[in-house]
Amino acid sequence: MPVLVVGSVALDSVETPFGKREEILGGSATYFSMAASFFTPVRVVAVVGEDFPDSHLSMLSSRGVDLSGLVRQPGRTFRWKGRYTHQLNDAQTLDTQLNVFEHFEPKLPEPWRSTPYVFLGNIDPNLQSKVLDQAQRPTLVAADTMNFWIRGKLEDLKQTLRRVDLLFVNDAEARELAAEPNVVRAVRKIMAMGPKVVAVKRGEYGALLFQGDTVFSAPAYPLADVYDPTGAGDSFAGGFMGYLSTCSEPTKVNVRRATIMGSVMASFAVEGFSLDRFKSLTEPEIFERFRAFRALTHFEDLAAGTLRAVS
Amino acid sequence: MPVLVVGSVALDSVETPFGKREEILGGSATYFSMAASFFTPVRVVAVVGEDFPDSHLSMLSSRGVDLSGLVRQPGRTFRWKGRYTHQLNDAQTLDTQLNVFEHFEPKLPEPWRSTPYVFLGNIDPNLQSKVLDQAQRPTLVAADTMNFWIRGKLEDLKQTLRRVDLLFVNDAEARELAAEPNVVRAVRKIMAMGPKVVAVKRGEYGALLFQGDTVFSAPAYPLADVYDPTGAGDSFAGGFMGYLSTCSEPTKVNVRRATIMGSVMASFAVEGFSLDRFKSLTEPEIFERFRAFRALTHFEDLAAGTLRAVS
Repeated sequence: MPVLVVGSVALDSVETPFGKREEILGGSATYFSMAASFFTPVRVVAVVGEDFPDSHLSMLSSRGVDLSGLVRQPGRTFRWKGRYTHQLNDAQTLDTQLNVFEHFEPKLPEPWRSTPYVFLGNIDPNLQSKVLDQAQRPTLVAADTMNFWIRGKLEDLKQTLRRVDLLFVNDAEARELAAEPNVVRAVRKIMAMGPKVVAVKRGEYGALLFQGDTVFSAPAYPLADVYDPTGAGDSFAGGFMGYLSTCSEPTKVNVRRATIMGSVMASFAVEGFSLDRFKSLTEPEIFERFRAFRALTHFEDLAAGTLRAVS
Repeated sequence: MPVLVVGSVALDSVETPFGKREEILGGSATYFSMAASFFTPVRVVAVVGEDFPDSHLSMLSSRGVDLSGLVRQPGRTFRWKGRYTHQLNDAQTLDTQLNVFEHFEPKLPEPWRSTPYVFLGNIDPNLQSKVLDQAQRPTLVAADTMNFWIRGKLEDLKQTLRRVDLLFVNDAEARELAAEPNVVRAVRKIMAMGPKVVAVKRGEYGALLFQGDTVFSAPAYPLADVYDPTGAGDSFAGGFMGYLSTCSEPTKVNVRRATIMGSVMASFAVEGFSLDRFKSLTEPEIFERFRAFRALTHFEDLAAGTLRAVS
């Protein structure tokens, strides 16, 4: 089933302990759609400026990403500049230039209004709501958000969350959104705001997936070489949603697999700058890493009689 | 098989967002031996002062903990005072009084020298070596350490590590010990120092277990109520070693189960102040939480044909 994503398409300048890149392809919609494209057709609603290279667009198109909803407007493309120290979990934002993104008004092309899977990238919650106003009874609505909106537009965000089935959120942001320091309790409060499923992203520590009264823990893949953490969260969401859209139902079994597939795609995203690793990524590599996650996390039950407590 | 532990027995004063306790039972050897006691006989080598309450000793004895190696010396017992904010992962040490612990010289009672499983709690690496000088061909030697020794006694620590099979270490400390920011690479360097198995403890994010060329990831149990994180790491080591000592061999299958059992015991430790939760803990509860870790981490393999990559 096709997945529609609304979010940013950006030119990033990134510095990590492993190198420095200027004006490389980035943005939440970009990482999301590239990761999801390995599983399903993706439809992108976004905006770029006159300076955005055509080569990026043709690269995405070649992956089966439909860019009919990407508009090019007068002005410059959204730019983000950031730096990571060896503590790769936290990006230090050096500069943000909204440019054409500042007056972004997402419009869904008419034939896309009935797209069954919708992902609202991390944009103004008002815009997220406007996207949902244009959508016709989607099967599943997922959203991402961040502390900027939690602090600045909490009421608007809560309006959006009532219409969201699945929320992707960092652990610190989950705590902040719920005003509750314990993650388990924070998620319960967030579920009361609307989402039936909450994916708590924890960077290098993986993710916790809450669905109803069950929790699933997915680690991040332990990599010896993490070149650039940018886009890991959106690649996680892309792998998750891309995989889930191929399933007949978001059952607990399928949501667990989707969580792992999100972790798989995030692990590839950080192995290179920008979307570089995805460009060479193959289906067998995805399968192999999915299996590697089983090897990483699974263990045998206790043999009968081995546990002999004193009491 | 019996497990011998050398470490601190302390009186802690702890403040968390959930309450404040003065002069409660604490110390690395205490948490370790209590957690391990659910699986195997435990032998404690430690020192307390004249002020140490007899009731604590009889509580430990009643759990099958042999205190023949615990000496009482003139002076006051080791004291630690700490505070946790809502960010429960990091303790803020307010006061440390070594007292009788300052001149602690661990002596193994003669019949204990051939104890097959040895755990060297987080003490001066010189003392850890002196314990090993007294041990006779133990089956498995495990050790814990901390940044204080990594910074102050690195060469002594490296001497000890040559004789250690299994190292328990925090992730930040692993990075510091190896002078390498990436955990996977740091562990490779630590393995070159001696330990064949390295358990990287990550607090509320669980643990990574490296053995040979394989990695196993164990989450921490997501709890809605964490009252006091003190002793979680030592309870993890206690559950790990206690369980492992009941296995015929430290195979990869058994080491994975031991890692989970460590996480199980750590999850109980933090549910109360001091050792309170352990006092009421039953065998069925341990079994049940072990199984809950499978429910938390396991997932189904991909169904055939569900992954259809574009490329």
